[in-house]
Amino acid sequence: MTDFQSIINNIHNQLINEEVKGVVASYIPELFKQDINSFGIFLQHIDGSTYSAGQAETPFSIQSISKVLALSKAIAFEDNRIWQRVDVEPSGNPFNHLSLLELENGIPRNPLINSGALVIADILLTHLKNPKEDFLNYVRTIANDQTINYNTKVAASEKRTGYTNYAAANLLKSFKNLTNDVDDVLDFYFHQCSIDMSCSQLAKAFYLFANSGKCVNNIQHIPVSQAKRINAIMLTCGFYDEAGEFAFRVGLPGKSGVGGGIVALLPNKFIISTWAPGLNAKGNSLLGMQALELFTTQTKLSIF
Amino acid sequence: MTDFQSIINNIHNQLINEEVKGVVASYIPELFKQDINSFGIFLQHIDGSTYSAGQAETPFSIQSISKVLALSKAIAFEDNRIWQRVDVEPSGNPFNHLSLLELENGIPRNPLINSGALVIADILLTHLKNPKEDFLNYVRTIANDQTINYNTKVAASEKRTGYTNYAAANLLKSFKNLTNDVDDVLDFYFHQCSIDMSCSQLAKAFYLFANSGKCVNNIQHIPVSQAKRINAIMLTCGFYDEAGEFAFRVGLPGKSGVGGGIVALLPNKFIISTWAPGLNAKGNSLLGMQALELFTTQTKLSIF
Amino acid sequence: MTDFQSIINNIHNQLINEEVKGVVASYIPELFKQDINSFGIFLQHIDGSTYSAGQAETPFSIQSISKVLALSKAIAFEDNRIWQRVDVEPSGNPFNHLSLLELENGIPRNPLINSGALVIADILLTHLKNPKEDFLNYVRTIANDQTINYNTKVAASEKRTGYTNYAAANLLKSFKNLTNDVDDVLDFYFHQCSIDMSCSQLAKAFYLFANSGKCVNNIQHIPVSQAKRINAIMLTCGFYDEAGEFAFRVGLPGKSGVGGGIVALLPNKFIISTWAPGLNAKGNSLLGMQALELFTTQTKLSIF
Amino acid sequence: MTDFQSIINNIHNQLINEEVKGVVASYIPELFKQDINSFGIFLQHIDGSTYSAGQAETPFSIQSISKVLALSKAIAFEDNRIWQRVDVEPSGNPFNHLSLLELENGIPRNPLINSGALVIADILLTHLKNPKEDFLNYVRTIANDQTINYNTKVAASEKRTGYTNYAAANLLKSFKNLTNDVDDVLDFYFHQCSIDMSCSQLAKAFYLFANSGKCVNNIQHIPVSQAKRINAIMLTCGFYDEAGEFAFRVGLPGKSGVGGGIVALLPNKFIISTWAPGLNAKGNSLLGMQALELFTTQTKLSIF
Repeated sequence: MTDFQSIINNIHNQLINEEVKGVVASYIPELFKQDINSFGIFLQHIDGSTYSAGQAETPFSIQSISKVLALSKAIAFEDNRIWQRVDVEPSGNPFNHLSLLELENGIPRNPLINSGALVIADILLTHLKNPKEDFLNYVRTIANDQTINYNTKVAASEKRTGYTNYAAANLLKSFKNLTNDVDDVLDFYFHQCSIDMSCSQLAKAFYLFANSGKCVNNIQHIPVSQAKRINAIMLTCGFYDEAGEFAFRVGLPGKSGVGGGIVALLPNKFIISTWAPGLNAKGNSLLGMQALELFTTQTKLSIF
Repeated sequence: MTDFQSIINNIHNQLINEEVKGVVASYIPELFKQDINSFGIFLQHIDGSTYSAGQAETPFSIQSISKVLALSKAIAFEDNRIWQRVDVEPSGNPFNHLSLLELENGIPRNPLINSGALVIADILLTHLKNPKEDFLNYVRTIANDQTINYNTKVAASEKRTGYTNYAAANLLKSFKNLTNDVDDVLDFYFHQCSIDMSCSQLAKAFYLFANSGKCVNNIQHIPVSQAKRINAIMLTCGFYDEAGEFAFRVGLPGKSGVGGGIVALLPNKFIISTWAPGLNAKGNSLLGMQALELFTTQTKLSIF
Repeated sequence: MTDFQSIINNIHNQLINEEVKGVVASYIPELFKQDINSFGIFLQHIDGSTYSAGQAETPFSIQSISKVLALSKAIAFEDNRIWQRVDVEPSGNPFNHLSLLELENGIPRNPLINSGALVIADILLTHLKNPKEDFLNYVRTIANDQTINYNTKVAASEKRTGYTNYAAANLLKSFKNLTNDVDDVLDFYFHQCSIDMSCSQLAKAFYLFANSGKCVNNIQHIPVSQAKRINAIMLTCGFYDEAGEFAFRVGLPGKSGVGGGIVALLPNKFIISTWAPGLNAKGNSLLGMQALELFTTQTKLSIF
Repeated sequence: MTDFQSIINNIHNQLINEEVKGVVASYIPELFKQDINSFGIFLQHIDGSTYSAGQAETPFSIQSISKVLALSKAIAFEDNRIWQRVDVEPSGNPFNHLSLLELENGIPRNPLINSGALVIADILLTHLKNPKEDFLNYVRTIANDQTINYNTKVAASEKRTGYTNYAAANLLKSFKNLTNDVDDVLDFYFHQCSIDMSCSQLAKAFYLFANSGKCVNNIQHIPVSQAKRINAIMLTCGFYDEAGEFAFRVGLPGKSGVGGGIVALLPNKFIISTWAPGLNAKGNSLLGMQALELFTTQTKLSIF
């Protein structure tokens, strides 16, 4: 039997002393305050057992990781109708985020790039009575943790400086692919991204994707088929322009955020989450990527 | 001697009965109310004589034509320093307006595409005490006509629906190529574009570009060298993706607007303006283009 | 236990009568001669058992499927050094195949798009003594079948008409990312793509990717880690601009060819191959895609 | 009266001592042998008078300047029919030469970029009995000089290394916008570009564009209207991605070549040619651009 605890300990010990730790995200001023030396790993097994190393209980800004949670809620409302407004193909392109959106008439490449996540936010805004409150409750429910909350400082910080998101939202609106008011969509989106969660909370929240749509409390939130499809989207689109690289090196569906978090999972087996704020050149956690590569290499547990 | 009056009359008579008149711009709701049958031509000779046919005295929305006037005022303030923030090359690309801006790190291709005009508006905002009032006064002065005014309905209409301009302005801001507030720049820009002028007023306002920088009242507003350079920019960039076509068929520096207006000029000779609200597929006045082609073909007066 | 034979039979029966069968590829004249009604399915289980329906033993042109075989041979020679000359990211872009190559300085997005496959062909040309003979022998060996052969008519047909491949090869050469002569690389590449194989032969040839690098004869051709990585590349890049869609709907690593073939696999479980010459708008076999989606839906066997 | 001789002398004297002279083109090995210190200026007035400074009689490789001569011959054969196969818009894009061609379905942006010039070469190949001989005779005729010749070393040098042109020609062929054999078109094109001419010979050859289609021997080679249109194309497209800059700074229609030559003209007035092999970052002669800017600034002779 795989000794997850010692594998995780070894990886944590090995990487914590690396000199090159990447660069903390500076484009959202609040995020820049993070300590480069923070490093946590958490593994939630499908059988209920858990394993952790380092700062696995410290909350951090989940940022883009929230896109997967928002997607799952949008699918719960609209099922496959959402694919009329957003595609499922990798974006592929580091240099021209808005270009593709323009060339493809306002249909975002996938729901995990910013423009796609804005369309998903627009869908949630249409369905939720009290959007911010209701979405937070959804996250608390699937993670089984009522202490999870928005970080309003981070949300406000991004609202003041998130010009590219304003640009994307207005471009979507010009293509009539936003039904709600641009400012309302962005306000919701900035809050969604500002949620603070720890590695442990994230692993629990993603339990449903590894468990055929059922959360830790055994409630079916989305159909089996949609859980699989979200995993497929995470694999092909979860790591910006480094999705191929992550599939290649790690071989698990997952999602990263500029706060330095990563969650990945092996269906029917486990969810593993890491947090290390230093990012590589493509915006993914440097130590996190390394930790997950070591983990799948040593355990031989990957989808491939 | 060229009989300008009968040439203009003949062209007006010939084209007024064309069945295909293009399509009135609908993206700004207020503009869509224009009468497709409106058609005016006005010629202002450098020697002071004037010639007109049709609705040459009816004001219409000058829209993008205002970009040349704004450019001349920005050059009056900053001379060649403006070229650090905007280039002078044709944009060439019909499909991806924002794409090029992204690829070129927020430096617009030229001051006559929307993103470039937003940078120019930002420059004016920085220099003018009461931006909207002062700019309007500048236009009234060079056209020697105090009745010229903003059309606040058109400005408000564009403010409500100008999502692509909001997208462009935010993208520029993300590249730090706007110094003022995004909303302030757009408010000024939408007003600038909303100015109503007739063919006759436009021809007078452009007199300074045909007259080495001196307006109809003989005041030097910009240096000779800059008047020439603005003409060069009009020739290479004045007609969206049809700049080459206009140079090829008409052979004059000029600028068009989606309100259906066109102004063109032969340095040291004349300024000619047309108004016909029906646009061709590239967004330029269909009859206006034809009128100007007929005019330079028949008079053999072009820069080539 | 899953009754593979009746599942395959049912899928074959259900789809063979579909009226919409897609369009046979016409850009290679020889391929256009294929019968639109051909349809075969073959499943090779890792335990040695096999299941088939329809024309599973009829050879057809494997075309791009050969890229995976060539990649595995290049990796056997150069291991991870090949990634200096080709990336592992999805290409994402339907419209501009050569554009990305230009923008990214001659480094193809991945080894399964044409430009990437030309770089792989160049690597093989450098290492193989008698390139065409040696590569064919490799394919015969891993498929355990000496009857597999090039279709010289198809190779010649593509040589006469493969202008985009000539364009790509010359562009690569201009970026110094081909070491051999352009014509030699293309001659080898056209032969590689021209190989005729049946569903049954293809499934056997891909056995090594589902079996940690060991072929049907239990010979280790590539390391375990590289077999996994090739599977990851197939998943993210194996279906042109429809890679995300295939991962989303089918959930298996695989590769398609314009001859109408598809091979997909579940690591450590099975390899499944289909052949139906009618292609969808993105160039993948229409019935093949449907067959595989039905198969993974009914068996619940996918990597997600 | 303008004293052309002393103006040219002064400009030559001023610039010959500049330390920064740009970089000699290295991509065609033969061109790299040029002496960076070569510098000639020649002015041919429409009244027959001529003025020269420096190495105005030394032949050099005219390269892309030949595209204008080829275009005029193609227009003589097909008049406006050629515009069905090539557009007249500036290309605008430094980074993706082939990309635009791909996006625009094989219709080159204009006849002065490489892909457009290949289409023109294809047209000439179709019409000329002995293409290379006949084209050379045409150039000799309009320049009134039987000593002009191909430089077969330069042609051969480009044939060996011109991979991007091979790529462009094959891409055009894939879009069916070449009727002749790819290799034949390229052979003709490489010869066309390899012609050696001096500043003096070039100015004479371009006399017809400044003289309403009539060459120095008073023979009408193209209609007046087409001479004007070729001037318009030179102005908007003659200087690669620096066409706007040249119009802005110099204000004359013109064409440059990587051999370091530039020809420009003021219709009905003069033709001026320069040669200085050092190129700027955009591939245009550095001293040549400066010389022409000084010339139009000092003489106040430009089309604007």
